[in-house]
This record gives sequence, C-alpha cells and structure tokens, in this order.
Amino acid sequence: MRFRKKIQALLRQDLISETGKVDHSSPLAPPGFPDIPSIAGLGMAAGDAGIKYSGRDDLAVWVLDSGTRAAGLFTRSALPAAPIDVTREHIRSASPRALVVNSANANAFTGMQGLEDCRTIAKVTAEALGCKPQEVLMASTGVIGEPLPVKRITDRIPEVVGNIAPDGWQAVAKAIMTTDTFAKGASARASVDGQPVTLCGVAKGSGMIAPNMATMLAFCFTDAEILQAQLHEMLINSAERTFNAITVDSDTSTSDMLLLFATGKACNIPPQGADDPRFKGFREALDELLKDLAMQVVRDGEGASKLIEVRITGAMSDASARKMAESIANSPLVKTAIAGGDANWGRIIMALGKSGESIKAENLLIRIGGEMVAKGGQRAENHDESLISRHLEGSEILIEAELQMGDGEFTVWTCDLTHGYISINADYRS
Amino acid sequence: MRFRKKIQALLRQDLISETGKVDHSSPLAPPGFPDIPSIAGLGMAAGDAGIKYSGRDDLAVWVLDSGTRAAGLFTRSALPAAPIDVTREHIRSASPRALVVNSANANAFTGMQGLEDCRTIAKVTAEALGCKPQEVLMASTGVIGEPLPVKRITDRIPEVVGNIAPDGWQAVAKAIMTTDTFAKGASARASVDGQPVTLCGVAKGSGMIAPNMATMLAFCFTDAEILQAQLHEMLINSAERTFNAITVDSDTSTSDMLLLFATGKACNIPPQGADDPRFKGFREALDELLKDLAMQVVRDGEGASKLIEVRITGAMSDASARKMAESIANSPLVKTAIAGGDANWGRIIMALGKSGESIKAENLLIRIGGEMVAKGGQRAENHDESLISRHLEGSEILIEAELQMGDGEFTVWTCDLTHGYISINADYRS
Repeated sequence: MRFRKKIQALLRQDLISETGKVDHSSPLAPPGFPDIPSIAGLGMAAGDAGIKYSGRDDLAVWVLDSGTRAAGLFTRSALPAAPIDVTREHIRSASPRALVVNSANANAFTGMQGLEDCRTIAKVTAEALGCKPQEVLMASTGVIGEPLPVKRITDRIPEVVGNIAPDGWQAVAKAIMTTDTFAKGASARASVDGQPVTLCGVAKGSGMIAPNMATMLAFCFTDAEILQAQLHEMLINSAERTFNAITVDSDTSTSDMLLLFATGKACNIPPQGADDPRFKGFREALDELLKDLAMQVVRDGEGASKLIEVRITGAMSDASARKMAESIANSPLVKTAIAGGDANWGRIIMALGKSGESIKAENLLIRIGGEMVAKGGQRAENHDESLISRHLEGSEILIEAELQMGDGEFTVWTCDLTHGYISINADYRS
Repeated sequence: MRFRKKIQALLRQDLISETGKVDHSSPLAPPGFPDIPSIAGLGMAAGDAGIKYSGRDDLAVWVLDSGTRAAGLFTRSALPAAPIDVTREHIRSASPRALVVNSANANAFTGMQGLEDCRTIAKVTAEALGCKPQEVLMASTGVIGEPLPVKRITDRIPEVVGNIAPDGWQAVAKAIMTTDTFAKGASARASVDGQPVTLCGVAKGSGMIAPNMATMLAFCFTDAEILQAQLHEMLINSAERTFNAITVDSDTSTSDMLLLFATGKACNIPPQGADDPRFKGFREALDELLKDLAMQVVRDGEGASKLIEVRITGAMSDASARKMAESIANSPLVKTAIAGGDANWGRIIMALGKSGESIKAENLLIRIGGEMVAKGGQRAENHDESLISRHLEGSEILIEAELQMGDGEFTVWTCDLTHGYISINADYRS
C-alpha cells in the first residue's frame, strides 16, 4: 500500500501540470505535424463545441464535392456506438458529401437517443450544406455511456461549415484527439497512367487499440477516381497489414472506424478491379499512408516508451504467423520485459507456446535486435548479451521468430507496457 | 521520461528492502498459513539446493506409499517445459511414489539436456527411495531457457528424502514459491459411506496465470481410494470452475501443472463412476479445496490490490458466458479502472462487445457491487454513484452482466492491474 500511496503522491506533485492535465507526452512522438497537401474536391474545418474539454476544438467537419465515393471498415464490437450504425447505413445508400466527427463523447451505449442524436447531426449538417441527411457520415470518440450533448454540436455546425477551407489538416487532426498526445497526419503520392494523384489522412487513437479494427478513428482522402467496390477492396487489403496489424493493449473500442474517400477530381480512368496493374503505385501509396498513420497510433500508445516490431516468418500460414505475432505483441509479460530493457526471451517462448499454434521447438529461431537468442530447442550458445542490451536501450525494438515450418509470415507492431499506461488508465476517467 | 526515472528512483530508494528484494507484499494476503492435517500414506520435506535464491528452500519432495493413484492436468502450451513431458509420461505408466519440485528454474526450452536432467532427477530419487524412476513425478518453476543446475538438485535429494515427515506443509509450500508473496495451502474434509476422508494441497503462482491451465503449480492429496479414471474425471470437473476460471494477466506458463494424488489409505469402496452419488461430499470438498487454492493465487496476482469477480448470467451457453467473462477479466482497461476505483462501466461494455459473442444491447443489465449501472441499451437512470464508489474502495469487487438471452452462466476471478505489476515485471528478471 505504501507503494501505491507514493505513486499517487508522485502523480499529484510532479506529473499533473498547471493545466490540470497529466503530463504523459510520448517519447516516441514525431518531431512535428507534417505538411499535408490539399485534395481537389475536399474542404475541412474544426470548431469548439464545448462538449467536455475546455479551450480546445472538439468538432471536425469535412465537406466533399458531389461524385465522391467512400469505403469504410468498422469495429467488430457486438455493441457498436450509434455513429457506427448510422455511418454504415449511410455509406451504403449514398455518395457522401460530409463527415462530422466529435471527440469527448463516444455516443456509445446510448440507446435510441444516441441514434436520434446522430440523425439530428445529419439533418443539421445537410441543411447547412444543402445536401441530404444520408449524405452525411459521422464518428464520435470519447467516454462510453454518457448521453451526447447534441445541441452543443448542432449549434456549432453552421459556423464550422462556414469556415470550410482546402487546408487545415492539423486543426482537424487535433480536434479528434482524446488521450492522444500528438496530432496524427500523413500523405502519400502516386501516379495513375502518368497522372499524379494524392492521398492524405488523419487518425486518432492511443489506447483500446487492437485488431479488428485497430484504428480507433482514421479518415483518408484521395483525388483519384475509383468506384466504390474497388475502393472498398483496396481499403481492406491495405488495412490488413497496417491498421489491423497494430495493438496497444488488446482492447477493441466500440467506435473504431477507418474511412477512405475518393473525390475523383484527378480525372483518371477508374480501375477495372482492385488489382488493376495501372493502380499498383496507388495501392503502394495507400499502404504507405495507412502504415504511416497506424505507426503514429502505436507510437502514441498510452504510456509507450518503445515501439516493438514482432516479425514471424516460416510459419505454416500467414494466419498462423499472425496468431503467434499477436500472442507475443499482446503479452503483458513480454511488454513489461521490454519496458524494463530485460532480454527475458523466455517470455517470448511462453507467448509463442500459448498462441494455440503448433510449433517445432527444435526448428525455432528467436532473435532480438537481429541477435539469435534461441535455437535448436534451447538458448543459443555464444549470443552476445551486451548487443541485445544495447538494442533494448533504444526506442525501436525488433523481435523475430522464424518457425522453419512453411512460408507463412506476418508482422505486428505494438508498444511496451509501462507505469505510464497504468497512470493514464487508472487515475482518471478518459 | 521524467516519470520513468522518478519511478525507478522510488523503487530503488524505498521499495527495495535490506534483503535486496522488492517489497511487493499483497494487500490481499490471508492472515497466515492455515493448519493443514496430515494424510495417511504421504510424507514431505523441503530443502535448499541453492539453485538461484539464497537463504531459502527451493526444493520440495513428497513421498507416497505404494498403491497411490494420481491424475494430472497440464499446460496447453505448444512449448511445454521438460518436466511436463516427463511427468505426463510417468503418470500414464506407473503408480507414483514421489514428487520432486524445484523453484528458481523452469527447465523450459532447455532441449534434450532438459529432458536428460529430468531423467537424472528421477533416477537419483528412485535410488534414494528404492523405487523405479517412472514412479517419480516432477515439476520446475522459475526462469525459462536457462540450463537446470541439476547436480545441485541431485546432491540434495538424499538428504531431503531422509527428512520426510507426515507434516511440513508450510515448508514445502514456501519452497515452491517464485514471485509469490505468501505460501499457499488449504484443506477440506468429507465423508464417504460415513468414513471421514481428508483433502490437502499447496499451490504457487502469481503471474503468467490464465486458462488453460491457470494453475502454475498445484499439488493436492487425499487419503480416499479412487481409481485413476475417476480421479482424472473428478479433477477435470473441479478445475473447470476453479483453476480454469482465474486469470491474472492472460499469459499462460510453459510449466503449469495440477496434480491430484489419492493414497487410498481411507480404505473406502472406490467410486463406480466420477458422478457416483456416494462421492457427492468428496466432489464438493475437492471443489472447495481447488477454489481455495485458486483464489489464493489470484489474491497474490502480481501487484494486485483488489480481487475481482466477474459473473455472467443469462448467456446463450456456459461457453459463451465464459468467453464474455474472460474478455472482461483480461481487459487491461477494465483492470486499470478498478485499480483506480473508477466506475467506468463503459469499459465493461467495450470488453463485452469485443468478446466475439452476440449480445442484445437492449436486454443487457450491468451491475457493479450489486448496483445497476446499465439497462435497456443505455446507462441506468438514478443509479447511486456513491454506492458504487464505496464498493470500489473495498478490496473485493463484483462485476455482473446479465444477458437475458438464455441459461448460460460462468464466473471468472481476476485482480486489478496496478503499478505493482509493472514494477514486478519490468524491473528485474524473475
């Protein structure tokens, strides 16, 4: 008990800054928000609806020209938030003209009133823009189970819509943050038939991150012209090894959503299929964009001090490799060992063993930072502990397990589990 | 980074006692080691083999009269430790005469040498006792991947065997501890055909605890006469809702083992089947013994400050209820909220939603400490937050979810996730 009291005293004295917020800025944060170009046919603006946070924006609106197509991936939670239901329905029925996102309240487990609130937001936004309510998509993130103060949002929407501009990525990225310590944005470029196309996106998320969906919220946009079926298939394929390959704490939110909008302003000839060779560069750029955003989410993992890459090769299948990678990446004992800079590879063995996949111990090779630690069913002779210790002192950790059983491979990214995670999640309601 | 340094300084200054051990005694520890009776046909002794720990016993030996039957449940890890393989083989082939257990080294992922070391221990023990090597069972617990210092163990076995006595439960319970903060033992009594029978056991474990097997190590003994097939079935049935219904951190060890020995000295007529009505009292006493030991393991969960009972009722099946209970009990966000005394029931919704089971939101009732917090697909009106806050200040927390979909029910026990867990697991190699 003495321990707990000391920690609490510490938190109160030193870690709570003058603004009343706990100081938990990520040591893995990028140096600053990137330059992100504008996308033809897209505008955006942020505003302060005063939902809960004071002195910061909590509302973001994107407006899309007519003719835009959209595809979405949504949380697999059996208890999804109201905006998930409504956006899923709207994305099927119409070409979207707007996306409205609020932070500070998830509008989740809010019953019929929650759905009603979504319809009110759609109606008010549609009136401000002169479009139909079904053309409005929406997302909410924040506390679960509290009624959405919908009037605060709808009162602010006309003003925010009036401020729509082609740029302002950092402002919208900031407005959708909850426990995030930095705003997340990225862009990528490609060409289709020699024609340049642009891809941009923002994301938020730092806890409750796990497949599937590992996104929390991510909104991506391109000026390429792509029909909805192909857009959807490309999004699924790219998410598989990016947003669906990251985990912070194995918890999955009720509100996760990944949307991809294509305004079609680049005037290219649309792809004939998701694997159309003319779109190879586009697919690579989409992979790059989603990976960039997904890595920013892991780097902002609650309390994270190290980014961990878990790479499984030589498994019986990709699916088997994925299960093993996730078992390691979600193991609290592996994640605490990395936090402590401890080359305790026995915990990697433990996590592989509990994955439910069959493993030949005598074939298994395990490397930390490229240095072999286990081989032939036992510890590797002559491995250099000091090399591994130096690797573990760094902020990017590589764990590799080679099964030598087949061609299956999968990589998962996670972060370490530190006192910071406990402080963020035990000490106040997020 | 300032945070981490402060914590580390704290740990070094205040928490590391003069003996060099981190002070993390559990606030949930029982007042003392219980009085445990002797069992006819069973002797025991502990000794110090100096494997790694200094100044404490790390070797325990139990000796059983001939005619004893044994049943075992073992880790489902795909990479089990060497003693798991050997004990599984021996328990099938012979009536056991001895059980040898060491702490401080798990003899796991130690290749052919690990198996060889097990055979050496069996041979030396058999020589000391005048029995066959296949009549010796064994278990090891501690660090994974380091060669077992087998000579230290075999050098000490003759002396420990020479000290065998009918009592000494606390000494053997202490000798098998690793990161445990207290020795775990229990007993229960029943009668068969009016004849009294006794059941006793010891256990160890405080991290790397999850179904299946959630045991770490548990060794139980009775003087009842029960044939092996029935003994095995009774053990499986009792473990299902005790040792297989607890979780500390969702991690499963390579070395988990639960053994039940029946010396047969009570001279009762053996049961005709595992559900023989003459053994109803015995089965209840076995449930009681295993639950008592399992609860002690959860109470000693690494860093635990609260025992959490997660009770699911009204599910479509017991299996479905179990999946939902485990999803809540393993959620880091639920466990940190409880640690912080935060009635953040949205995280319970999140954990139910991600369980993969179908749920009717409008039927779902959620209670914390008996007080309804969610009902009819939204937060319950008029619930008394102060009642819940008082409940969360206590050390035993009850979370209930009633699905109102069927008759399935399951209860899982876990503990909260605190700074103590991080300190224990991040700051030194266990």
